[in-house]
Amino acid sequence: MSLNARKKSAADAAKAAGADALLVTHLPDVRWLCGFTGSSAALVLRNEAASGARSTRSPIRAVLFTDGRYIAQANAEAVGTEVVIATKPPLTEACEWIASAGVKRCGFDRTQTTVAALDNMRKAIPAKRRKSLFVAVDPLIAKLRQIKDAGEIASLRAAALLGCRLFDHILTFIQPGMTEMAVAAELEHAARLAGAEGMSFETIVASGERSALPHGHATLAKLPKRGFVTMDFGVVLDGYCSDMTRTIHIGRASAEERNAYDAVLEAQEAGLAAVRAGVVTGDVDEAARSVLRRAGLADWFTHSTGHSLGLEIHEDPRLAAKRTEKLKAGMIVTIEPGIYMPGKFGIRIEDSVLVTRSGCEILTPSPKAWIEL
Amino acid sequence: MSLNARKKSAADAAKAAGADALLVTHLPDVRWLCGFTGSSAALVLRNEAASGARSTRSPIRAVLFTDGRYIAQANAEAVGTEVVIATKPPLTEACEWIASAGVKRCGFDRTQTTVAALDNMRKAIPAKRRKSLFVAVDPLIAKLRQIKDAGEIASLRAAALLGCRLFDHILTFIQPGMTEMAVAAELEHAARLAGAEGMSFETIVASGERSALPHGHATLAKLPKRGFVTMDFGVVLDGYCSDMTRTIHIGRASAEERNAYDAVLEAQEAGLAAVRAGVVTGDVDEAARSVLRRAGLADWFTHSTGHSLGLEIHEDPRLAAKRTEKLKAGMIVTIEPGIYMPGKFGIRIEDSVLVTRSGCEILTPSPKAWIEL
Repeated sequence: MSLNARKKSAADAAKAAGADALLVTHLPDVRWLCGFTGSSAALVLRNEAASGARSTRSPIRAVLFTDGRYIAQANAEAVGTEVVIATKPPLTEACEWIASAGVKRCGFDRTQTTVAALDNMRKAIPAKRRKSLFVAVDPLIAKLRQIKDAGEIASLRAAALLGCRLFDHILTFIQPGMTEMAVAAELEHAARLAGAEGMSFETIVASGERSALPHGHATLAKLPKRGFVTMDFGVVLDGYCSDMTRTIHIGRASAEERNAYDAVLEAQEAGLAAVRAGVVTGDVDEAARSVLRRAGLADWFTHSTGHSLGLEIHEDPRLAAKRTEKLKAGMIVTIEPGIYMPGKFGIRIEDSVLVTRSGCEILTPSPKAWIEL
Repeated sequence: MSLNARKKSAADAAKAAGADALLVTHLPDVRWLCGFTGSSAALVLRNEAASGARSTRSPIRAVLFTDGRYIAQANAEAVGTEVVIATKPPLTEACEWIASAGVKRCGFDRTQTTVAALDNMRKAIPAKRRKSLFVAVDPLIAKLRQIKDAGEIASLRAAALLGCRLFDHILTFIQPGMTEMAVAAELEHAARLAGAEGMSFETIVASGERSALPHGHATLAKLPKRGFVTMDFGVVLDGYCSDMTRTIHIGRASAEERNAYDAVLEAQEAGLAAVRAGVVTGDVDEAARSVLRRAGLADWFTHSTGHSLGLEIHEDPRLAAKRTEKLKAGMIVTIEPGIYMPGKFGIRIEDSVLVTRSGCEILTPSPKAWIEL
């Protein structure tokens, strides 16, 4: 899908929401629409056809407002978009432009616009238009971004495969007695050397009793001679995120540990088996959760089964209990049940998968069978 | 300053803004107030004295709402704060609690609350109270966080010194022909091994013509045999950010390059010399900018002179042209003028400093004299 096609879809969505222009300030949305990756941006999409203006140009006009740090970068990245280097705050200049360009109703994303930003937007335009010009709309771009196009799927696949290579590498690196931080450092260093821009979230390396912390960031705690090590990590490659979790065991496991691992793996595979275009997200959650319920472990599964990802690590739809959104082909979601028994241990297993019409394709094919180092 | 003292200051600020409770959702604010570092939180501070309730407990009641992933972590970290593990979204349960606890007016941060979040907050409470219960207030906690206490200064000093050690290390590592990404990877790996939780922003390694990009993230471009390399990086250590920039030259520089470096260094030192409690931030910007103006380089200085930092990498006040906030003792700010000549080269030099009554203390004492590798 070209950037022009994305802008067109966005302008169409705005039009369907009753707006002849759309103000976009959420940076991943800006990037998705026009390619600009800077940290300061307000993008205006205007449906010029809808406004009745006659023009031989594309009916969608796109104007990106950024600041002086991004002169070269904005012009290089935002090809096909007009670039304005603002001297006032970019949002202010964008609103001034919207008001002066004859826009009737400009949509803004209610989930990405603060109360203060809306005040500033209104202050930037003539008083008589303050009540009518800006209209809160649902996250239209986030909705469009739920379905990944071929280029995005290729990027997400590459990011996920890099994650798998990192897991292979770390298995050869891990030793009892090294710190969780050393494991994270090695993972992240290898990611960087392989071309990642960074990690998609703070790396989780949670060992021994700390594995019972679902979000146990790597600390100076030492890997035990006997116990679980949960590693949950992701890279950012070409802007796109990866996300995977594997839990391994150092030394000989108890029967309780081994049985718990098998239950989590069975739950994870049941979640995967439930994924298919048309299936309700809450049903995928239930497919995984019910396995743990039968094993008497559901009380320790204290989070939801998964989330979507793309340019951001957490996107909608979420795969949680009672959620009613339907999966669609082209979504990329995680399936990541886990159990956390405070004072004892925790286990989580996570894949990222591409939703297809007949099921799903696992993007993170690293082994999940029991690993005892 | 103890967490209890911070809560008291926050409740006092809310009271001065006409609110008997404060709803805090911005995660760095939550961490600063109660110590909780998780990614899901809504914290309510209630001035029980103000509400007329009789109690032998502290007049400030603090209740943290988070989700099931953080049971163990919230109880371990948020000592002195009541923890509620929410089954609905934590923000929803926090609002229900606020409405049922007899709060009259609850402040929320207008700069951290989206239009959608405010809608959700109002939907969570009885219809008759929707107009009156929640009141938008200025960023009260961010304001309190501007002045760092002794413990925070120690943390920021440690983070800054780690940055300096990383710079020393990277000087022994850099070679022409290696990629910018390899330099960033080495910096970040060394940071991790030294105990950093991560980097405070995406590492900038911009070499040769790319040094003209103020925010030139490390790429697979190779360091040239002749040219500038700008490195702008920071660590997160114990939650606190560091930030420093140095620009070095590989190979023999031209007179133009050398003169430009000297001008930027003179501007940076003029900025530092202007820092003192009571000085207006815009005047610090002007002190640096005027040096570059006299050198005929001001057109290439396309950003502001600095920003504050702490738990976040960019905090207020900013040090920009025409800004009128006054510096206060205990603020930590960056001084980072730079010039960017597209197609040629760029230079930036940045220190983080502690504002004192008589001037400032440089927290990043790495050498700034001309370095030709």
